[in-house]
Amino acid sequence: MKIKREDLETLDRADPLARFRAEFDLPKGVVYLDGNSLGAPPRRTRERMRRVVDDEWGGGLIGSWTGDTAWMELPRRVGDKIARLVGAAPGEVIACDSTTVNLYKALSMALAVDPKRRVLLSDRGNFPTDLYVARGLVEQLGGLHEVMLVDPGEEGIEEALARRGGEVAVVFLTHVNFTTARMYDMARVTAAAHQAGAVVVWDLSHSAGVVPIDLHGCDVDLAVGCGYKYLNGGPGAPAYLYVARRLQHLGQPISGWMGHARPFDFSGSYEPAASVSRYMSGTPAVLSLAALESSIDLALEAPMDEIRRKSVALCDAFIALVDAHCADAGLELVSPRDGRARGSHVSYRHPRSAQAMQSLLAGGVIGDCRPPDLLRFGFAPLYLRYADVGEAVGRLAQACRVPVRAE
Amino acid sequence: MKIKREDLETLDRADPLARFRAEFDLPKGVVYLDGNSLGAPPRRTRERMRRVVDDEWGGGLIGSWTGDTAWMELPRRVGDKIARLVGAAPGEVIACDSTTVNLYKALSMALAVDPKRRVLLSDRGNFPTDLYVARGLVEQLGGLHEVMLVDPGEEGIEEALARRGGEVAVVFLTHVNFTTARMYDMARVTAAAHQAGAVVVWDLSHSAGVVPIDLHGCDVDLAVGCGYKYLNGGPGAPAYLYVARRLQHLGQPISGWMGHARPFDFSGSYEPAASVSRYMSGTPAVLSLAALESSIDLALEAPMDEIRRKSVALCDAFIALVDAHCADAGLELVSPRDGRARGSHVSYRHPRSAQAMQSLLAGGVIGDCRPPDLLRFGFAPLYLRYADVGEAVGRLAQACRVPVRAE
Repeated sequence: MKIKREDLETLDRADPLARFRAEFDLPKGVVYLDGNSLGAPPRRTRERMRRVVDDEWGGGLIGSWTGDTAWMELPRRVGDKIARLVGAAPGEVIACDSTTVNLYKALSMALAVDPKRRVLLSDRGNFPTDLYVARGLVEQLGGLHEVMLVDPGEEGIEEALARRGGEVAVVFLTHVNFTTARMYDMARVTAAAHQAGAVVVWDLSHSAGVVPIDLHGCDVDLAVGCGYKYLNGGPGAPAYLYVARRLQHLGQPISGWMGHARPFDFSGSYEPAASVSRYMSGTPAVLSLAALESSIDLALEAPMDEIRRKSVALCDAFIALVDAHCADAGLELVSPRDGRARGSHVSYRHPRSAQAMQSLLAGGVIGDCRPPDLLRFGFAPLYLRYADVGEAVGRLAQACRVPVRAE
Repeated sequence: MKIKREDLETLDRADPLARFRAEFDLPKGVVYLDGNSLGAPPRRTRERMRRVVDDEWGGGLIGSWTGDTAWMELPRRVGDKIARLVGAAPGEVIACDSTTVNLYKALSMALAVDPKRRVLLSDRGNFPTDLYVARGLVEQLGGLHEVMLVDPGEEGIEEALARRGGEVAVVFLTHVNFTTARMYDMARVTAAAHQAGAVVVWDLSHSAGVVPIDLHGCDVDLAVGCGYKYLNGGPGAPAYLYVARRLQHLGQPISGWMGHARPFDFSGSYEPAASVSRYMSGTPAVLSLAALESSIDLALEAPMDEIRRKSVALCDAFIALVDAHCADAGLELVSPRDGRARGSHVSYRHPRSAQAMQSLLAGGVIGDCRPPDLLRFGFAPLYLRYADVGEAVGRLAQACRVPVRAE
């Protein structure tokens, strides 16, 4: 595939999502290819933060927990909005805590489903915090469980389930791998886990908001995800936890007052809420939830099929341009060429990845490095233009070659 | 004690903390006596939020995690500032997660000190979430432990320790009781716990920022607290966890990447940081931490001895005025009259507490109700005037009597 500058401009003119770029604040002269790590701020978030600080907190004070502002309802209200992005029903998602804490809850719950099963199955390429949480939980529970890791991919998981399925309590995987961008077939793996009698926990951090997800269609048990990547909720935004309604009888280990059926009764005994609210622990982070809500409202204005189409097209264009212009630059694609098996970022191995990224950053192209030698570029369809892709590849060709000549 | 309006005005004119009121945004015509539940917004927080959203997030994007803005350092930097308010050393406090989640970590750590000890000792009046967390943890760990509750007070705790001290793993208490405002003698109870071989976990939610606390002087092991009461960090502000340096070899159960020695190595194996950072789990909530930092910077400008002196004086004046003007209003004081044994709020039993509070709120005096029949009033010395106390008691006298006559 050969792509010219004019082609990119034509694509931008025809882009049905073009209007969304104006909804974001992006510094001049910057091509931001790191929205997969920290999404850019929607303009409306600025006004929303002013309102929550000045009017709701300053004006309404303690009264804002109830009434029109209804801070108490934020975790469920934002959760219901996230539910629409990931194919869940209202009342199945709660926005709270960090991804790490929510994963800890989800794995704890998964182990409670059938206590005779003692294996937590994942892949070696899973995001480190996911593996840390699993191992930490195993240690806390006395070392009776085993974290079993296989190579990434459906086959590895299925093979492990075939061998040891009767022992597997939970299969926990990240939907889109944070380095390679390889995307699991959620329906296939979930079905295989269920076939073996295990439950699944999907981490949607690198896919929600940019890849169509159908938790219900895939009959997913539990899922977690983060709010600050493609959801643009701001640095350290609240995360979320999905619990299929059929599993909402399960308790979670961090029993706090906000998970109580009636927190303001201040009862001495814990009675978990008869709803997804039972998966909350402490007081909702109102300021952060307000920022997250404003960015999710924006995301919900864009049709997911258009987001996905543009995401694949941006990545395809990037790969094609690198093929065409960086043939001798020492870049080796580690992400799938087939857009159907890929999330919304693209990674290349490069022998001097850190120097190349320094050079890119100096030229205003923001991506990042991941160990050991990866250059990683994320494509957020709401605020990126096809022209940005052309600009980025031009800079990348220079950035990869210059150090070679200098040596 | 007889207090007149002129006395209150004289006290306000002589108040060495008077300048701090102008640092806060308070609605006109409101007397805010609920800062013990949700602190009022400092004016500077508004500007800080604008900066973190527009300049740091919008302008610096992913780069703001490092460099001048140093988001990565926020949990420790804010923790070190909180340390100055509670008598801890730098490197002993980390700002993260909710009070509930931090208490869960702290109790888990406390149980690890001597696994043969199986009793978690507290008082029946402790804040419900503290009791829920303990019971949830016991349940998660297989029911081998026991949560033992006694009546509030040093004697009850000491008596329990005398009887069963050899079994007690941890004494966990809230420093200032959320209903009665009764304050524990932290040094005495901590010494008694240590004498019995147990560790202590203090919940400072209702005392930090308004009562002098000397965690080091009292040789406290572990403590937690919330950021949104007297610390004025905003609704659902990040909480904090204190771990005495001598105990920082202890691990915690929610092992996430931010507790890793080198999070950005993305190593497959978990190596906890050799510092208080190991008590973090997920990604820091930057927007909320920025708000909390700005309000703590403000609190650190005020001398703690002046804060305490004014806090006691405000509460004393309130009680004296209620004695003088509400003698027949059906109010029964449940807080200590002795300021030395009291935090910074005052509670009264009243047969129609809910109606009385409705009437107060309608008149612009904001306090709250706590079950079963308490009227609760908090006194935040940084933004309250003595004149506010006079105004509040005037309204209270009306609010308590009117419903009586109407019946």
